[in-house]
Amino acid sequence: MPGPIQSIERAAAVLRLLASGARRMGVGELARALELPKPTVHGILRTLQLVGFVEQSPDTGKYQLGAALFHIGSSYLDGNELRTRALNWSDSLAARSMESVRIGTLHEGQVLVVHHVFRPDNSRQVLEVGALLPAHASALGKVLLANDPVGHVDDEPLKAFTSATITDLDRLSDALEQVRQRGWAFEAEELVEGEVSLAAPIRDRRAVTVGAIGISGPIERLCDGDRQPRTELVSYVREAARSISRELGAIPW
Amino acid sequence: MPGPIQSIERAAAVLRLLASGARRMGVGELARALELPKPTVHGILRTLQLVGFVEQSPDTGKYQLGAALFHIGSSYLDGNELRTRALNWSDSLAARSMESVRIGTLHEGQVLVVHHVFRPDNSRQVLEVGALLPAHASALGKVLLANDPVGHVDDEPLKAFTSATITDLDRLSDALEQVRQRGWAFEAEELVEGEVSLAAPIRDRRAVTVGAIGISGPIERLCDGDRQPRTELVSYVREAARSISRELGAIPW
Repeated sequence: MPGPIQSIERAAAVLRLLASGARRMGVGELARALELPKPTVHGILRTLQLVGFVEQSPDTGKYQLGAALFHIGSSYLDGNELRTRALNWSDSLAARSMESVRIGTLHEGQVLVVHHVFRPDNSRQVLEVGALLPAHASALGKVLLANDPVGHVDDEPLKAFTSATITDLDRLSDALEQVRQRGWAFEAEELVEGEVSLAAPIRDRRAVTVGAIGISGPIERLCDGDRQPRTELVSYVREAARSISRELGAIPW
Repeated sequence: MPGPIQSIERAAAVLRLLASGARRMGVGELARALELPKPTVHGILRTLQLVGFVEQSPDTGKYQLGAALFHIGSSYLDGNELRTRALNWSDSLAARSMESVRIGTLHEGQVLVVHHVFRPDNSRQVLEVGALLPAHASALGKVLLANDPVGHVDDEPLKAFTSATITDLDRLSDALEQVRQRGWAFEAEELVEGEVSLAAPIRDRRAVTVGAIGISGPIERLCDGDRQPRTELVSYVREAARSISRELGAIPW
């Protein structure tokens, strides 16, 4: 069987670089980052521009992601069965909890947000679909890590976002064991000061955890006096997760 | 100067096919559509799978778009200056008009929705960011076509969505001339029965039309008795377009 096609791998690496960090990069910058000769990178960029995956700024000559890639990437959501099945249930979870709802899947060790329902109070909120959240510091991520057969937690140092973020691998391991035992996850100010989140697993007909659904919001609204999540919110989240799992065939009766 | 890199062009064609229509396709189907030998397509798919741009269903062996492509594509919005500058103004247009707001740019002869603010009434609405709207049957599209120096309207038959859709090229040409003269566009039930839309151009410091902003909704709410858009709504839309254009440097004073 022949190996992977080098030019496609390199084109993918160029797109990844343009999607991260600076977002507008010159040929020289990209060549240095990829450790490739400038003419090679230039040839890749010209082809990517031809198919609309990158655009070149007329002012600076620098490259950025193109509209065609954005449109094609968005189509991923239309084919995402988890998201399609979850639309109704996530709306209803937002209405019951009066908090914002996210559905996430594990993607390269992080949580990819595939659906986001705003808190139903007309406040200004930023849509996070397509964003990546750190797995070890979010309830969605803890659910996904706890139920991940591959065990994506690696030996990289875990990044601290607040003083409450779990950065020790043994402590994270204990936390994930607790998530497995009680069937849902909770995170208190581990990602953002003053914010907590709460999530439960979504399973498919093979009983594999394919995603997680959860709510997040200020600690005063989501928790009771001893910093534990309000029990009715826990049951709303778990009920939504079970309903979606049933639609995906996890519960046959 | 060497030509474009064939394998990257072919990989882009595979991704486009997977983004359109069926969304899950087998190797044979893709090979027929691209008129390429199956082993060639298989090599491209294996490489795209390796970089996370496609995923293979464990059940059917068919291919669909991958999560990495979705995440990378979403990053396009972060680098989109038009969208960034327009966030506040589109929120305020939605609040003033009490209708849903869209911002679009021209992409391959269609309108690519880069921002969408829901109608502020808590009703259930589907997010359309990343979707493509037909240019000749939407107010956003008419604004973009009317101000497009390249003149993207081609000789293809224009698709009819309702009995009111303009399908004749001469009639469309007249309509676009009117849009240029009065500086905004209107569409009455040309895309969806009972719905109308209204839009104005967003210009940058080169005075080039880089996008359009508009509102859409039921004809009863947006129009007066003689099926013309309510004048205050026209001025809200034009004011929002002018404010964004000013932020983009179109109006230097």
